[in-house]
Amino acid sequence: MQQRSQATRAAILAAAGKLFSQHGYDATGVAELCAEAGVSKGAFYHHFATKQALFLALLNDWLEELDEQIQSILFTAPDIAEGLVRMAGVAGKMAGDAGGNLPMFLEFWTQASRDPAVWNATIAPYQRYQRVFAGLIQTGIDEGSLRVTDPNVAARLLLGMAVGLLLQASLDPQGADWPRTIEQSLRLLLGGLEKRSDE
Amino acid sequence: MQQRSQATRAAILAAAGKLFSQHGYDATGVAELCAEAGVSKGAFYHHFATKQALFLALLNDWLEELDEQIQSILFTAPDIAEGLVRMAGVAGKMAGDAGGNLPMFLEFWTQASRDPAVWNATIAPYQRYQRVFAGLIQTGIDEGSLRVTDPNVAARLLLGMAVGLLLQASLDPQGADWPRTIEQSLRLLLGGLEKRSDE
Repeated sequence: MQQRSQATRAAILAAAGKLFSQHGYDATGVAELCAEAGVSKGAFYHHFATKQALFLALLNDWLEELDEQIQSILFTAPDIAEGLVRMAGVAGKMAGDAGGNLPMFLEFWTQASRDPAVWNATIAPYQRYQRVFAGLIQTGIDEGSLRVTDPNVAARLLLGMAVGLLLQASLDPQGADWPRTIEQSLRLLLGGLEKRSDE
Repeated sequence: MQQRSQATRAAILAAAGKLFSQHGYDATGVAELCAEAGVSKGAFYHHFATKQALFLALLNDWLEELDEQIQSILFTAPDIAEGLVRMAGVAGKMAGDAGGNLPMFLEFWTQASRDPAVWNATIAPYQRYQRVFAGLIQTGIDEGSLRVTDPNVAARLLLGMAVGLLLQASLDPQGADWPRTIEQSLRLLLGGLEKRSDE
């Protein structure tokens, strides 16, 4: 039963990812979600109290997956610069299938701009990633490899670069070799963060 | 009459900016747009053949304004690096009132991801800005002040940084001193683009 319940939950989440992307959050009703997932309304409400709860679960699942990837990179990278280059590799892979996910991201941001509960759920991980990146950069400064004066600014720049490039990649997948662009962008940026031999 | 016609057009565009942001493009009808603008349906269709034409005009007006600002900066800046720093200043000011415009940007991107006509109108200026930035960076390389190997990558990075930081500023206006963050980010980035004295 546990397994079947997990499968039901996964089917509802997959249906939500599909229908919210295609038609938008507002235009998608619980009845359509149930039909797409092939589940009863009773099963739906057993898993998600509201459509918004489903939306937030979708966001949360996506973030958990991203967190796991980041943590495994940080755990295995020999130093901060290499860790950041490897993260750019992950972002590059994300760019590869970002086109399909773009409408979902746009839905997250649109709902966040209209609804305080979604805003909190969207902005909290943003702020957390800023702190994670700022901590990494501080470590680089302590190691003596980075010459940044304000780790918070550098962290926002890293996050901004990642989000901005992924957005461009999503809107225009054929417009560039995005994985290569993202990796080279990070290397350019590291050139601005790293200590120079003349310092 | 010419003046009155201009005022009508402006009123319809202002109504569209407001209602599309608040309720989304799909949920806003021509009747509501006319009521908000205080114009007749006849006047509306005199100016805009369809709701989509109005949407594209809104995007176009916004881009023309941005173009004028960029051109006046390039015309007066003494060199490329200073021109980029001044552009960061403009982006910083945009960040100040970006919160109010965010829903509109998200609408542009959401519609672009669903509608080829909007996609063309959204992506064309993106590609144009990439070329403008790549040309600037090439000038910097020719001047001998930049050491970038691929101006196209650097151009996408600049554009990605601008869009990503403005998006963060829009989602979390209180989260940082955004004008300062944007200016310092550009200076960090220039540190990665500029020729070093040890080269």
